[in-house]
Amino acid sequence: MTDYSAQLKSRTDYANSVIDRFLPDEKGYLAELVAAMNYSVLAGGKRLRPVFIDSVFRLMGGTDERREPFMAAMEYLHTYSLVHDDMPEIDNDDMRRGMPTTHKKFGTACGLLAGDGLLHWSAQTALKAFDYAKNEEDKDCIISAFKIFTDKSGPYGMLGGQSVDVLFTGQHPDRERLDYIYRLKTCALIEGSMMIGAALAGADKEHIDCFEQLGRCVGMAFQIQDDILDCTGNEQTLGKPLNSDDKNDKTTYVTLFGIDKAKSEVVRLSQEALRILEAARCCRQEENDFLRRLIESLVVREY
Amino acid sequence: MTDYSAQLKSRTDYANSVIDRFLPDEKGYLAELVAAMNYSVLAGGKRLRPVFIDSVFRLMGGTDERREPFMAAMEYLHTYSLVHDDMPEIDNDDMRRGMPTTHKKFGTACGLLAGDGLLHWSAQTALKAFDYAKNEEDKDCIISAFKIFTDKSGPYGMLGGQSVDVLFTGQHPDRERLDYIYRLKTCALIEGSMMIGAALAGADKEHIDCFEQLGRCVGMAFQIQDDILDCTGNEQTLGKPLNSDDKNDKTTYVTLFGIDKAKSEVVRLSQEALRILEAARCCRQEENDFLRRLIESLVVREY
Repeated sequence: MTDYSAQLKSRTDYANSVIDRFLPDEKGYLAELVAAMNYSVLAGGKRLRPVFIDSVFRLMGGTDERREPFMAAMEYLHTYSLVHDDMPEIDNDDMRRGMPTTHKKFGTACGLLAGDGLLHWSAQTALKAFDYAKNEEDKDCIISAFKIFTDKSGPYGMLGGQSVDVLFTGQHPDRERLDYIYRLKTCALIEGSMMIGAALAGADKEHIDCFEQLGRCVGMAFQIQDDILDCTGNEQTLGKPLNSDDKNDKTTYVTLFGIDKAKSEVVRLSQEALRILEAARCCRQEENDFLRRLIESLVVREY
Repeated sequence: MTDYSAQLKSRTDYANSVIDRFLPDEKGYLAELVAAMNYSVLAGGKRLRPVFIDSVFRLMGGTDERREPFMAAMEYLHTYSLVHDDMPEIDNDDMRRGMPTTHKKFGTACGLLAGDGLLHWSAQTALKAFDYAKNEEDKDCIISAFKIFTDKSGPYGMLGGQSVDVLFTGQHPDRERLDYIYRLKTCALIEGSMMIGAALAGADKEHIDCFEQLGRCVGMAFQIQDDILDCTGNEQTLGKPLNSDDKNDKTTYVTLFGIDKAKSEVVRLSQEALRILEAARCCRQEENDFLRRLIESLVVREY
């Protein structure tokens, strides 16, 4: 295992332990609701968003535990969006990450409520960051992070992208609308994660804006790579069937521009992200190297 | 019009203007999502929860605008719960307040997303209260109110009550489970509204706890009155069909104990609420009178 792989594994393990620690208890009358919420979260995933929060927080000089509630909250938020995405009204997907989707396992009523529950719980969890505030300045950092958290997830963030994607189904989007959908649906939470890491560490507005730009490039590269993997990937590695975009008659970067242009765009976006990172001149060398390697790895990922 | 009726109308008009002011704009790609969100909110309602926030805030000596974002946010939150409740997976209702439910008017995908959108938007709106904070003490009041807002709405609040109600359908609840459902599903947001009003005004823990007790009595009385109206009300006044509980084979306070016991329980709970209000010894006489009259009116309401 290279140094980077070991570090990524250690960071992902840390994110998993944090995500696990803040989950609600499955007991009493609420057992079924909470079981469905926790099932959805524990079904796995790369934990990319919490790893980004952690990584940018460290890079910008943060040291205490205030990032942990936000790391967990961001993953619960991301999971809620997947649970509702998979519902019969939206994508009607039976499998995710090699396991039955939440509504397939627990029924559609429970799927709807478990998604709602995760969205509620994500806000409740993020608020626990205030427990670590020692003074007014700390509170201001957390208030700022919380605003980013809610803005990047709502109607002008992730949920808005999802709704434009879904409510225009059947009318194929052009380049402009596809960019809009990707920017909100996929990029918003990645931008938000990086910005939250910076805000919690007390970074100035200029640096927070810089991580928004960086997150946008990474999010776009990530989404286009997803489109590519849907055509060329391995079903077992991906944990879901191939060609689902084609089957759902869905416009993607690949259907609009072809696979070669899509691949070169992923490379271009990653290089742009690395350029922004370098220009930010963050001097914690070890953290800088880790984030650089993480961005580079997203270009060649196979799941 | 009596003094009280005029005051109630003026307070409700004020709540409506605040609710309207914080709504998102219907434009660009998001027009359909936002139209569905705003349709759901503007379909009407008593605006009881924002009126409670406003009333307790004034009663406890609050004067500035920090209550307004929470008044709007609470109504958006309440509306989201109704939109998802009406969905085919849950209650499958076509009409509410004399108008088609959101998913009947905009389709089920849009109904799901508009409900999600309102939940996101409620948090974004409540956060705007920090714009009115002048010092650390103000921020602490708002952080405390925000914690109440998320706790009372999530899995251990309203959403939990809804999930126990829905996921146990077919197994008739006993008194204990019915109390649990009512306490979370209906009382939690009314308790929360009163507690938020108190917390924002800088009330001490003792007074916040007192408004939690008061809100619980009012919420219980309110829910049992709803059960009674479902049997004895007027369809046109109510804006929805009668006997829906019976049709859905639903256990309510009326089916468990009969209509006479239900009516006397509403009276008992209202008197208990008035006793708690009196014991709290809040000295703003005009506000005290208004809240007392509001609580009394809930016993005799017909819609």
